[in-house]
Amino acid sequence: MKLLEEKIILEGNVLSDSVLKVDRFLNHQIDPELMLSIGKEFAERFKNDQITKILTLESSGIAPAVMTGLILQTPVLFARKKKSLTMIDDLYHSKVYSFTKQEKTEVSVSKKLLNTNDRVLVIDDFLANGQAALALIDIVNQAEASLVGLGIVIEKTFQNGGDQLRKNGIRVESLAQILSLENGRVHFVHEEVKQ
Amino acid sequence: MKLLEEKIILEGNVLSDSVLKVDRFLNHQIDPELMLSIGKEFAERFKNDQITKILTLESSGIAPAVMTGLILQTPVLFARKKKSLTMIDDLYHSKVYSFTKQEKTEVSVSKKLLNTNDRVLVIDDFLANGQAALALIDIVNQAEASLVGLGIVIEKTFQNGGDQLRKNGIRVESLAQILSLENGRVHFVHEEVKQ
Repeated sequence: MKLLEEKIILEGNVLSDSVLKVDRFLNHQIDPELMLSIGKEFAERFKNDQITKILTLESSGIAPAVMTGLILQTPVLFARKKKSLTMIDDLYHSKVYSFTKQEKTEVSVSKKLLNTNDRVLVIDDFLANGQAALALIDIVNQAEASLVGLGIVIEKTFQNGGDQLRKNGIRVESLAQILSLENGRVHFVHEEVKQ
Repeated sequence: MKLLEEKIILEGNVLSDSVLKVDRFLNHQIDPELMLSIGKEFAERFKNDQITKILTLESSGIAPAVMTGLILQTPVLFARKKKSLTMIDDLYHSKVYSFTKQEKTEVSVSKKLLNTNDRVLVIDDFLANGQAALALIDIVNQAEASLVGLGIVIEKTFQNGGDQLRKNGIRVESLAQILSLENGRVHFVHEEVKQ
């Protein structure tokens, strides 16, 4: 997605060979117009898949997920990292290890909001080692719902999360694929457009 | 806002005399179409105030804030509850006590993303005791930015946060005002429409 790649070049910040900071438009400050464009792109890619629910993880997945839900006209469910006192229902649980936060977090989804009839699109801001994606997929499986695929805003292809998921037959649609962050520069994967 | 009140009656769940659960459309599952209506309503109320930035708190404030930012064409900044490894800039800090989570949380905003030229609209999902609002206002003040007002999705007027803020001259626009949750029922405040 050209608009997103341009934004990454213009406003992203390469902190190291593995860390890209996008806090000016995605995970601290959010550019709502860009999020709408991202939502439209995900919606276009999954428009024929009868999605009934979008699942994401708080917090940075929420904005792109909500815009996708707006276009696809489906509810958006975000897995919570901390239990609120109002989460009194039966819950699905899974665990996510975050390399950027260096800790393991339990994530939860209310059982009443995800079930076997759902066709689920998982959306997240980043795909690197795939830890968050695996936890969300685990929850989809616990609910015996159908996983349609993953919509990822930024994939770091030099980490192996995306490869592993695709090898397991999971459809992964990434709007920007980063081949490397070496020498302080962002290098994108550019593939032929598949029709 | 009639649409929101109807949604609260239809899908909200009164857990006690002080707790309203809205996890079917606002703070666990999100209704994107309703969020857009909420964004349009906030935008209408603040359209003449030259807002340059919307400030909210992760996670449940993000969806209404992003839709408001989409209509007002302003960036949205969400205060983070946990520091990511990529938050290496100078930060504004404040503290929020959450009654529903029974803990005090430090919230942070990058100094480079909020400054003295900003005219800030603070948006949040709930206003009860006003703890989250006060922390966000504290951050606006630290940045020496101008606080234009608060946009609240659901205000519980039987708790004193809104009263205190208004007494201090702060403009608070709440889309649904709840007078009480007694006897398991939601009672709204209905005021004359001010022209």
